[in-house]
Amino acid sequence: MIKRRKTGKINIGGVEIGGNSPVSVQSMCNTDTRDIRTTVNQIKAMTDAGCELIRVAVPDRCAAEAIFEIKKQVKIPLIADIHFDYRLALESMKNGADALRLNPGNIGKRKFIQKVVNEAGQREIPIRIGVNAGSLEKGLSHKQEDLADSLVESAMRNVRVLEEMDFNLIKVSLKASDVTTMVIAYRKFAGISDYPVHLGVTEAGTLKSGLIKSSIGMGSLLLDGIGDTIRVSLTENPLEEVYAGWEILKALNIRKRGLTLISCPTCGRCTIELISLAKQVEEKFKNIKKPLTIAVMGCPVNGPGEAGFADIGICGANDEGYIFKQGKIVGKVPFDELIPRLESEIYRLL
Amino acid sequence: MIKRRKTGKINIGGVEIGGNSPVSVQSMCNTDTRDIRTTVNQIKAMTDAGCELIRVAVPDRCAAEAIFEIKKQVKIPLIADIHFDYRLALESMKNGADALRLNPGNIGKRKFIQKVVNEAGQREIPIRIGVNAGSLEKGLSHKQEDLADSLVESAMRNVRVLEEMDFNLIKVSLKASDVTTMVIAYRKFAGISDYPVHLGVTEAGTLKSGLIKSSIGMGSLLLDGIGDTIRVSLTENPLEEVYAGWEILKALNIRKRGLTLISCPTCGRCTIELISLAKQVEEKFKNIKKPLTIAVMGCPVNGPGEAGFADIGICGANDEGYIFKQGKIVGKVPFDELIPRLESEIYRLL
Repeated sequence: MIKRRKTGKINIGGVEIGGNSPVSVQSMCNTDTRDIRTTVNQIKAMTDAGCELIRVAVPDRCAAEAIFEIKKQVKIPLIADIHFDYRLALESMKNGADALRLNPGNIGKRKFIQKVVNEAGQREIPIRIGVNAGSLEKGLSHKQEDLADSLVESAMRNVRVLEEMDFNLIKVSLKASDVTTMVIAYRKFAGISDYPVHLGVTEAGTLKSGLIKSSIGMGSLLLDGIGDTIRVSLTENPLEEVYAGWEILKALNIRKRGLTLISCPTCGRCTIELISLAKQVEEKFKNIKKPLTIAVMGCPVNGPGEAGFADIGICGANDEGYIFKQGKIVGKVPFDELIPRLESEIYRLL
Repeated sequence: MIKRRKTGKINIGGVEIGGNSPVSVQSMCNTDTRDIRTTVNQIKAMTDAGCELIRVAVPDRCAAEAIFEIKKQVKIPLIADIHFDYRLALESMKNGADALRLNPGNIGKRKFIQKVVNEAGQREIPIRIGVNAGSLEKGLSHKQEDLADSLVESAMRNVRVLEEMDFNLIKVSLKASDVTTMVIAYRKFAGISDYPVHLGVTEAGTLKSGLIKSSIGMGSLLLDGIGDTIRVSLTENPLEEVYAGWEILKALNIRKRGLTLISCPTCGRCTIELISLAKQVEEKFKNIKKPLTIAVMGCPVNGPGEAGFADIGICGANDEGYIFKQGKIVGKVPFDELIPRLESEIYRLL
């Protein structure tokens, strides 16, 4: 039902972004990049959770050099996050970075930018122009009401710098911590450019409020067909970012992966411990990789019908548990046997 | 920046919905309505958390009668949730319900609907037509691709039934557990009707995935200016629903209330325990009611600038903590004294 915006396509270490390629889920390590072992372990855990591209901070030469060893030990493309110093970009590419995130504007002199672009062009390494409302260049309005326009203007200036150097392996992000600003900025950019975009709400906060802001911002844009790769930013373990990225894409039927849980809020009609039941089901099946929709409903009267589209579902009343498929009850067991029965049904399905 | 859809206005026990009235946050008790004490306690806790209207299930006559006592002990308007039996609607109104949620279609005979409408009209009690993708009437297509249209058609049929009886104290919801379906349905309905709408994603699941689905669905619509009252449905303690409702409205600058926390994801540049610091700040100031934006940032280099719009912020490096306001560092303390210092600054601000 979503009509995706047409964009150009880039390739980051084997993962395509833009065009008709799947909207990818990415994240960023919060480790010290120079601590190779810890960084690799985090990347491996995120890869297992479904992370498809990973970014690491490169604050100094030592971090840039660590990329060489990290790359050998991980399976997903690695993006180097660069600020200010063009030499760190060059060093990261030499050590195997699959892409860069930087802003030409904060690299400074044109001859430095040219050096980065020459190297990136030769190696076919894409660059993300990562504009951020908190670090807009001077000369652009920082007023709240102008912020979306300023983000777009900053992105276009940076794009032009690269285009003038005949470089077009570009993706763009226009992040703000204000959700409305971010949505308007991406919509405007999408209206005037066909470079692929990386979606993100920046400084979104801790888990719950961060999920809410990110979901509103990215979800609205994805519904518009805007967004080629996404990164949820949370002040949390980055595994939560990967989980959230997938949940956003799954909620919009853009990608499929693992468990989708449907469960009703409990109400005065419900006679079972629904909250704990739903949590148990979520915990038990959270690691399946094949797409599967499980419904956990409060009552056998409304539950099976309301969740008729689920692959399989359970509901209960008092001491009795029911299994249903396609909206029809197919089994009845004592309530305590409900989860084991669901488990055996699911292994049969998978 | 959001242009709100023009709708009619209704009044539920003193809280206006629609027109230019604030988008309100509501929730539903998951207690047994007949258990008056537990229900009242839950409503009081939700009221404290910012719940502005509360719904209770009315599965039988005893629940309808309990409304009388509950109403005496709570301060927010109470909505009775009715299925199938028109007598429960009549009984709820007699016992002081401020509004009803029902579907004329599932009440059955026209003469029964007429009785409910007569009573509601006389008492000026609004009715929400609560259409749900899981319980559409027969005769409407239940196919996934037709579901949004079917939701709208069902809502309009139910609206016409009430309008034919000269009743127009109506609000409408068109819930689905599929986010895209729900968004399309509300957009279509908003295009052909000016009754106020109650937004919701149904069976959204447990906390995290439920927040994500609800935020995408309601957030996209609110960005379009659609939505007059919202209810987040979670398989969780309903206090979380109230919290989430407010966070959604706050994220879009539609309403203001209490703490807004801005915090960056930590990265390889961060030398402090940012995640726990952000959580401490969130916990400490979660109950303030006056709107306040606090930033908790990882480093004093980018932090103060990127969060310059926050009322107050903190950041740190190694053993040092900094307080900043309007993007400028205004104080430096040992890291351990950062939170106490923030606290005293905030009490000065408030």
